[in-house]
Amino acid sequence: MANPQVLIVMGSDSDLPVMEEAAQVLAEFGVPCEIRISSAHRSPQRTAALAAEAAGRGIRVIIAGAGMAAHLAGVVASETTLPVIGVPMGGGALNGVDALYATVQMPGGIPVATMAIGKAGAKNAGIFAVQILALGDERLVVALGAFREKMAAEVAAKDRALQERPV
Amino acid sequence: MANPQVLIVMGSDSDLPVMEEAAQVLAEFGVPCEIRISSAHRSPQRTAALAAEAAGRGIRVIIAGAGMAAHLAGVVASETTLPVIGVPMGGGALNGVDALYATVQMPGGIPVATMAIGKAGAKNAGIFAVQILALGDERLVVALGAFREKMAAEVAAKDRALQERPV
Amino acid sequence: MANPQVLIVMGSDSDLPVMEEAAQVLAEFGVPCEIRISSAHRSPQRTAALAAEAAGRGIRVIIAGAGMAAHLAGVVASETTLPVIGVPMGGGALNGVDALYATVQMPGGIPVATMAIGKAGAKNAGIFAVQILALGDERLVVALGAFREKMAAEVAAKDRALQERPV
Amino acid sequence: MANPQVLIVMGSDSDLPVMEEAAQVLAEFGVPCEIRISSAHRSPQRTAALAAEAAGRGIRVIIAGAGMAAHLAGVVASETTLPVIGVPMGGGALNGVDALYATVQMPGGIPVATMAIGKAGAKNAGIFAVQILALGDERLVVALGAFREKMAAEVAAKDRALQERPV
Amino acid sequence: MANPQVLIVMGSDSDLPVMEEAAQVLAEFGVPCEIRISSAHRSPQRTAALAAEAAGRGIRVIIAGAGMAAHLAGVVASETTLPVIGVPMGGGALNGVDALYATVQMPGGIPVATMAIGKAGAKNAGIFAVQILALGDERLVVALGAFREKMAAEVAAKDRALQERPV
Amino acid sequence: MANPQVLIVMGSDSDLPVMEEAAQVLAEFGVPCEIRISSAHRSPQRTAALAAEAAGRGIRVIIAGAGMAAHLAGVVASETTLPVIGVPMGGGALNGVDALYATVQMPGGIPVATMAIGKAGAKNAGIFAVQILALGDERLVVALGAFREKMAAEVAAKDRALQERPV
Amino acid sequence: MANPQVLIVMGSDSDLPVMEEAAQVLAEFGVPCEIRISSAHRSPQRTAALAAEAAGRGIRVIIAGAGMAAHLAGVVASETTLPVIGVPMGGGALNGVDALYATVQMPGGIPVATMAIGKAGAKNAGIFAVQILALGDERLVVALGAFREKMAAEVAAKDRALQERPV
Amino acid sequence: MANPQVLIVMGSDSDLPVMEEAAQVLAEFGVPCEIRISSAHRSPQRTAALAAEAAGRGIRVIIAGAGMAAHLAGVVASETTLPVIGVPMGGGALNGVDALYATVQMPGGIPVATMAIGKAGAKNAGIFAVQILALGDERLVVALGAFREKMAAEVAAKDRALQERPV
Repeated sequence: MANPQVLIVMGSDSDLPVMEEAAQVLAEFGVPCEIRISSAHRSPQRTAALAAEAAGRGIRVIIAGAGMAAHLAGVVASETTLPVIGVPMGGGALNGVDALYATVQMPGGIPVATMAIGKAGAKNAGIFAVQILALGDERLVVALGAFREKMAAEVAAKDRALQERPV
Repeated sequence: MANPQVLIVMGSDSDLPVMEEAAQVLAEFGVPCEIRISSAHRSPQRTAALAAEAAGRGIRVIIAGAGMAAHLAGVVASETTLPVIGVPMGGGALNGVDALYATVQMPGGIPVATMAIGKAGAKNAGIFAVQILALGDERLVVALGAFREKMAAEVAAKDRALQERPV
Repeated sequence: MANPQVLIVMGSDSDLPVMEEAAQVLAEFGVPCEIRISSAHRSPQRTAALAAEAAGRGIRVIIAGAGMAAHLAGVVASETTLPVIGVPMGGGALNGVDALYATVQMPGGIPVATMAIGKAGAKNAGIFAVQILALGDERLVVALGAFREKMAAEVAAKDRALQERPV
Repeated sequence: MANPQVLIVMGSDSDLPVMEEAAQVLAEFGVPCEIRISSAHRSPQRTAALAAEAAGRGIRVIIAGAGMAAHLAGVVASETTLPVIGVPMGGGALNGVDALYATVQMPGGIPVATMAIGKAGAKNAGIFAVQILALGDERLVVALGAFREKMAAEVAAKDRALQERPV
Repeated sequence: MANPQVLIVMGSDSDLPVMEEAAQVLAEFGVPCEIRISSAHRSPQRTAALAAEAAGRGIRVIIAGAGMAAHLAGVVASETTLPVIGVPMGGGALNGVDALYATVQMPGGIPVATMAIGKAGAKNAGIFAVQILALGDERLVVALGAFREKMAAEVAAKDRALQERPV
Repeated sequence: MANPQVLIVMGSDSDLPVMEEAAQVLAEFGVPCEIRISSAHRSPQRTAALAAEAAGRGIRVIIAGAGMAAHLAGVVASETTLPVIGVPMGGGALNGVDALYATVQMPGGIPVATMAIGKAGAKNAGIFAVQILALGDERLVVALGAFREKMAAEVAAKDRALQERPV
Repeated sequence: MANPQVLIVMGSDSDLPVMEEAAQVLAEFGVPCEIRISSAHRSPQRTAALAAEAAGRGIRVIIAGAGMAAHLAGVVASETTLPVIGVPMGGGALNGVDALYATVQMPGGIPVATMAIGKAGAKNAGIFAVQILALGDERLVVALGAFREKMAAEVAAKDRALQERPV
Repeated sequence: MANPQVLIVMGSDSDLPVMEEAAQVLAEFGVPCEIRISSAHRSPQRTAALAAEAAGRGIRVIIAGAGMAAHLAGVVASETTLPVIGVPMGGGALNGVDALYATVQMPGGIPVATMAIGKAGAKNAGIFAVQILALGDERLVVALGAFREKMAAEVAAKDRALQERPV
């Protein structure tokens, strides 16, 4: 496989069904990625090393997903200057509001680019990573344009189907 | 002036004192930027055009700041495939929670990279734009490394001053 | 069919089961309506055109339903001076609070008449559209009066049934 | 003075500084309005009568503003089939979230068209009343168009001023 | 049946499974009550009359339960000086927070004694009504004392059972 | 002074400016009351004794005000079967939402009649105590009627003043 | 059995499935504990006695779990100077936010060490009790080190399994 | 100075006025402490080292205070098995709710003992540290008892002053 350009990291394998939305988008755009499990709290050194070594391994964008007091994206961002995209996991008693606040409210100096809670956010994390990479890859610019056109066409098709349904 | 690489757009000039945090960071890193006022609701065509034409003018990253039902970043993101960073404005009755939700909870397909509410978020939007641009500009990689070291040194200096204060 | 007086627009066909509450009310009052799918984010030009051309096609009231960072009603309202009624969709991690804030917290200048989250709101959007149209249509004034009387009678009937239930 | 077409009602004279935003908009559009104080809780019969008699007096739209457990708009709406626009007042311990929920979350059957919390909402209530009245008054259609153009021009002027400021 | 001392009123028969918790407590204490359905919004005159005539019919305490923008308790309280106890219904998109705020945040002058959201609140509304009536009825004082002792004994019994369970 | 019928208790003398709203209402109605400071957490035995002995001293209603994790009303309610009215204090980081939840969300068995956050709630606590006492005191029934009429008259007077203000 | 060092108390046996997470952790570390049911509201004297006598019986740490207006931990903390750990129960209309605020927002003077809502919090309460006891028990220091290593190893194992899954 | 038993760490010197509440309590109890500034995000290695080396330096309890996406306490807790007490800072757009959730909602395995937002929480963090240390120090047990008695006496004194104030 080609060297991964995007690192997707999550705190637990229970986050995998959500975070695979990001991996799937990257696969559709032909962007090689690596999916890793590493916890900010239960394996802090491993997480710090994964983040610190990412740039040296050719990683260009990191996507981090975590729930509850979701420190993963922030911890990763503190160990690298690569762009870090955070995905707050839903579920739990607070339904992801805790993860959203713990991901997005980063103090000045260490940004985390935060997406929506859950699957929509994971999918958008993948797309946003492609948008970043497209700045240096004309093939991806074209692919993103086609992706947008396909989405608009799907909306139009659904609208047409609705107009044509029997009353 | 050099061609702007980052477009900072806000819905109202009342957002300027917050959004200038982003502009200042970009200036520190020597990244030319353009600051524009355009409202998602009061000047929708102008906003759509600004977003749609950005890539053609050489813009590579867009930062959008807005308050209340903050649609600006989402509207901009729907008109371009450039990376769009959203900054929710604080203030108002809901203190920016409305702007945060309206910026970050984008449905799957059109991502907005959301930062913290207010000044910390605006500053981080600038830094995140630099982190994106650094993927194609080794000078910025070095500058980001220095920026991080300076922050860490400031923390250490404050800690030292605290230890040395007379009891 | 008669020319539609009300345009119901939603961002996705998954919103249809909720938004049909509005269509059903309009049908009960004999107000012709058109139901369209168009996304603020995935098909922005289509949405802008739909809103901008509505008045010219004889539409008099627009109902827009969307979830999450619900920009649809605001985007539509920015392209027309027809009255726009917004319905925040429930569901998702934040259960519609995000959609409520993104719909109701419009900045001064471009109003969106916001209804309750979900089905109750969709039903009320239909009724409110009828109340607006009734200002120019005496038949609807009478029908609204009868509708109110029927609701009050139903409450009375339920109360009577409760009093008469065997202990 | 011409017969009022819009009734603005509020629960207390302390709401006047906010609700006058609505009156001012109506004055700008030349729509005669009446401003009344009547409390849902402290003067319920007066409020019920004010609402019930409004249509007979030629009122066509009612704007109701209240804070805390803001029942005023709902109580008014239950006594008339005229369109009722609700403005939640900010302030208080919950900063208007209580008033927002108590105004917007109307059960199916009796809609209240809810605006943003506080002054932006009051201003938009006035504009929305004009948008409703414009359906039967071509003069107002033209005026609304001019109002929109003026808003867009102001945004453009502010943007121009920003571009021209000395660095 | 004896004349009812407590009036339980709710906006819809869908609230009955919750509000019967209150009726059941009153039955246990031998306090005759009347359960009525009347909506603040769909049958406002009926609701106003029910509240205004309650004292004359010998009612001494009113319990009102409603959901969403829960105006019922406040509307009832505005029409009588009898003590009114409010029970916010859960369910709906906001899970009863809307009903809680709309019930408890009454402005100065017209109190509503608010209980917890849902069944616990309905049960406590019944108990609180008994506590009020006990001020004029020594039999209820004794019964309340026994009720408290029984609750404490149940806690002790559950604790004992836990200690004795086989490891 | 006459024996107090109402006991007002608060956790700290910093709550006095708010809770005096309750005392003032009781004074206006000629209901003797006693104001005490006792903390649920810092003086638990004192608080338990105050509550347990209240009925024996002729107290008939207890009003308890506290902030943050406001346990005072619940602790008092657990030691007496007299009606206990809770007033959540505003202020603090959570602005009284913590105190509201900690006061109103009592589990089934031990009710606390909760009022609005802050001064409006304290005032209403006093009025509600009078409404309870009026069940056994015809003088208070008459006084409450007059109080309501005065409130309605004040609303009418303010409305009249508004109509007569020079344009 | 050895004398219990940790007392786990909960308000109702319905909390047992959650609170047993704490007991299980303590069992794994070989720390004897006692599980008791006692309610802050329904059996206040019992609860006060349980707390006040704990230190004398050799208890060194208390874990208290409760839901809704969760006063249990605070009431226990007010009767002892042993460290008290609070676990907010989820469930109910507010999903544990009420219990969280009522547990954590203790006023200055009487601390409650609050854990996350629900099972994660109960488990962590057990671990935190062990961390406290480890200050005086070298065996527990070693066991905690092994526990941490095991957690990190599990993360590594899951990551390895993920890397080795067939594509 | 004696070797510090408690380490107080905060992310920024702007947190000092709040966190000194903890230091002051420790000073009153004669517990030597060390106050350090180290940021989870801006100086991650420094923070990790500070936490990892604490036990070896004789530190027995760590208090960590941070605001916004407050990761400091969690990051510290992941590097040591000493008890870690977290203090969420107030201020900022979300007034400390973000810091509360980011501190308390730790996933199972790594506990943080969370206190109230702001000064009350910082003070209680100091007291809780003393309560932990008192398990191995009889002098602190006695001091805590005296501290409690003094608090209760202050409440009694304030109550007495209130009873004696001239009417």
